[in-house]
Amino acid sequence: MSQDTFPPTGMRDILPAEMELRDAAVAQLVRVYRSYGFRRIETPALESLRFLMSGQGGENEKLVFKVLKRGEKLTSAMASGQGELADLGLRFDLTVPLARYFAENHARLPHPLKAIQIGPVWRAERPQKGRFRQFTQCDIDILGVGSHAAEIELISATCDALLALGLRDLHVRLNDRRVLTAIAEHVGVEPSRHGAFFIAVDKLDKIGAAGVADELRAAGHSPHAVRAFSDFLDDQRAHGESLERLRTTLAASAAGPAFPALQEIIDAVTDAAAGRFAIAFDATLVRGMEYYTGPVFEITHAGSSGSIAGGGRYDEMIGRMSGREAPACGFSIGFERIIPLLQSAAAGFATERIALLYDEQEVPLRAAMKAARDLREAKTVVVSLEPKRKNLSRQLDELAAHAYSHYAVLRGDPAAPLVRPLPGPQRAEGGDR
Amino acid sequence: MSQDTFPPTGMRDILPAEMELRDAAVAQLVRVYRSYGFRRIETPALESLRFLMSGQGGENEKLVFKVLKRGEKLTSAMASGQGELADLGLRFDLTVPLARYFAENHARLPHPLKAIQIGPVWRAERPQKGRFRQFTQCDIDILGVGSHAAEIELISATCDALLALGLRDLHVRLNDRRVLTAIAEHVGVEPSRHGAFFIAVDKLDKIGAAGVADELRAAGHSPHAVRAFSDFLDDQRAHGESLERLRTTLAASAAGPAFPALQEIIDAVTDAAAGRFAIAFDATLVRGMEYYTGPVFEITHAGSSGSIAGGGRYDEMIGRMSGREAPACGFSIGFERIIPLLQSAAAGFATERIALLYDEQEVPLRAAMKAARDLREAKTVVVSLEPKRKNLSRQLDELAAHAYSHYAVLRGDPAAPLVRPLPGPQRAEGGDR
Repeated sequence: MSQDTFPPTGMRDILPAEMELRDAAVAQLVRVYRSYGFRRIETPALESLRFLMSGQGGENEKLVFKVLKRGEKLTSAMASGQGELADLGLRFDLTVPLARYFAENHARLPHPLKAIQIGPVWRAERPQKGRFRQFTQCDIDILGVGSHAAEIELISATCDALLALGLRDLHVRLNDRRVLTAIAEHVGVEPSRHGAFFIAVDKLDKIGAAGVADELRAAGHSPHAVRAFSDFLDDQRAHGESLERLRTTLAASAAGPAFPALQEIIDAVTDAAAGRFAIAFDATLVRGMEYYTGPVFEITHAGSSGSIAGGGRYDEMIGRMSGREAPACGFSIGFERIIPLLQSAAAGFATERIALLYDEQEVPLRAAMKAARDLREAKTVVVSLEPKRKNLSRQLDELAAHAYSHYAVLRGDPAAPLVRPLPGPQRAEGGDR
Repeated sequence: MSQDTFPPTGMRDILPAEMELRDAAVAQLVRVYRSYGFRRIETPALESLRFLMSGQGGENEKLVFKVLKRGEKLTSAMASGQGELADLGLRFDLTVPLARYFAENHARLPHPLKAIQIGPVWRAERPQKGRFRQFTQCDIDILGVGSHAAEIELISATCDALLALGLRDLHVRLNDRRVLTAIAEHVGVEPSRHGAFFIAVDKLDKIGAAGVADELRAAGHSPHAVRAFSDFLDDQRAHGESLERLRTTLAASAAGPAFPALQEIIDAVTDAAAGRFAIAFDATLVRGMEYYTGPVFEITHAGSSGSIAGGGRYDEMIGRMSGREAPACGFSIGFERIIPLLQSAAAGFATERIALLYDEQEVPLRAAMKAARDLREAKTVVVSLEPKRKNLSRQLDELAAHAYSHYAVLRGDPAAPLVRPLPGPQRAEGGDR
């Protein structure tokens, strides 16, 4: 069995140094979100499959890890040869469970509900570099606020949280599902093909305008619509991606109310940013999920291809899933994407960490314990009692590599250990990032 | 779909107030454990079934939630009609995954490894009051220390952590697997029946000496052994559960080395306790898991029937599971059991929480946002912007119930909101505990 100690495909073990970085990041994010009045909640990792696969999760529903029925239920499902073998599934995001949570606990929750959710989700993705099958999501959602005050708070709070982590050069991109629909209509895409059109437009960043045109043609969109969309892109670019220009272009559409909303979001978020981050309208921002109904937004950062956070308004989903209507808007940080962008955990854990080395042959255990306790109490630092090894110099190197700042060797008089600094921090675990 | 919003059987949604209590508890536990040099690690929620069900998990292996294979593998398992349908399972504890983690990451870990693990585990228990199918475990383990320095540190750190949560009247019970085995031999239980004997002895607290005798008889132990065990219990009681007396009684057994170890653990932990908690030897303490090889211990608290923490030494398990030998010892806090014992979250979250109420018809959004931002910056408190409702007095009651301490209503000049205290904290969510 000795070779077979890998974690399951696409899942990973987290070493102490990365865990401390993750913990420090979560603490900062929660601190900022709390200051805005958000509160943490939690749902179980498992949900009923009927609920998970009700159609709101889009492509993610195909990636559910399904849990086998148990006991009598499994026996009868297997015997019939056609019953469903599974009844539960691991959640693939934190939004679908939030809809159930809100309906179930409505009477006991504050209204509006401003929720923080941080926890693992699971997706049976095809294994590939940088894609995990278990990963952490970090979401904030506002349920019960129909005005775009919600969007403004979500964007401001999320940018503040990312700034608190030390991330700079954040760019918020903003669009609106109603504007996207109006563009599709404007260029002459048939209503039944809007979904496919958005999927192609979503690739603009990656494959460019010509690539998108190719893809639209290949997908069977009319040559007229493909040309009209190219012209539209050129016109927008020529006018500096102006919201005002687009408003004129789409004057005849149903997207009218979206424009003042987008403008007010941009103005208020620009206030809040005070130059620390940027927000701009982008008519080609799509965001994948079909449940979005209004503004959609994401944050990009120079250090990461793709976005590091994404969200939008999904006013109809809660009602459709849970039978309890509520306007809703959320913003999710790609936690696994920001971890590699952060500085070493050192900043968050600058505490003195002292290794107190003892040899049981030389120092009675009770005395060693007391020395550690005294040091801990006197200095409120980390004091780890560790058996002294024969090769002390190698042990000291290892301690330095594992984030210890000081050490002492207990001798005859353990009451007054001489604490010495270790050589500067190296990181034995750095190799895996 | 509107009625069907329960979480899955035996699993639960966590409301904001309880979540804050749990977060505050985790923060305290981690703070104390870190001060002893323990460091957090994490493993995936899923493990390979082959590993989970290798025999080290005892009865818990029967309670694994199994995850259905996917794609081609599932199709072929179903087609053959006899292949295993599942390949992964949700972990049922944090100890079995730790064995795999240690073997897999050995070269990159500090040695000894002093690990903190806090996370959910899953068991498909028969649904009953107070038993959850997803619950949080909170473990510390020391891998690589063969001396009972490990037991002393684990017990001291765990008691310090529980004291930091405000729990008083902690009683540590201590025994040793070698002593238990020697008792079984001493009273004449056949070696093949030791396991069944320990299971019966484990119930002494619940069903008393007579109940245990009945159970031993019913299980087919010889009348002589049952009588000898009753005599043994009487003798120990008559001698004040003395470790010294037991040592004499079992002088001929292989348990000899256990006695000085137990005495040194008791002495050193008593030092560390400095009167804040108690530790005592208890010859009838069993602890369920079969993998224990030396000292076992648990903590009881007046507020909870059964123990609130349990652990012991398991020197052989890591090698058997992972092919990499290491002495090991761990202590696990029953997180779900201590949460109901803790005071309200208020203590941990005594921050001022201000609700800033606004009416979009009266106050421009940008101005409301700015007022919230100014207040947040000036006072480093929680400031939640909330739409003002028609029925203000009811809204204020609800805010007080949801842990707000203050409120202000934004009027004509939002730059200088008048912040007033809300009536004292009531807890809308108290009902569910």
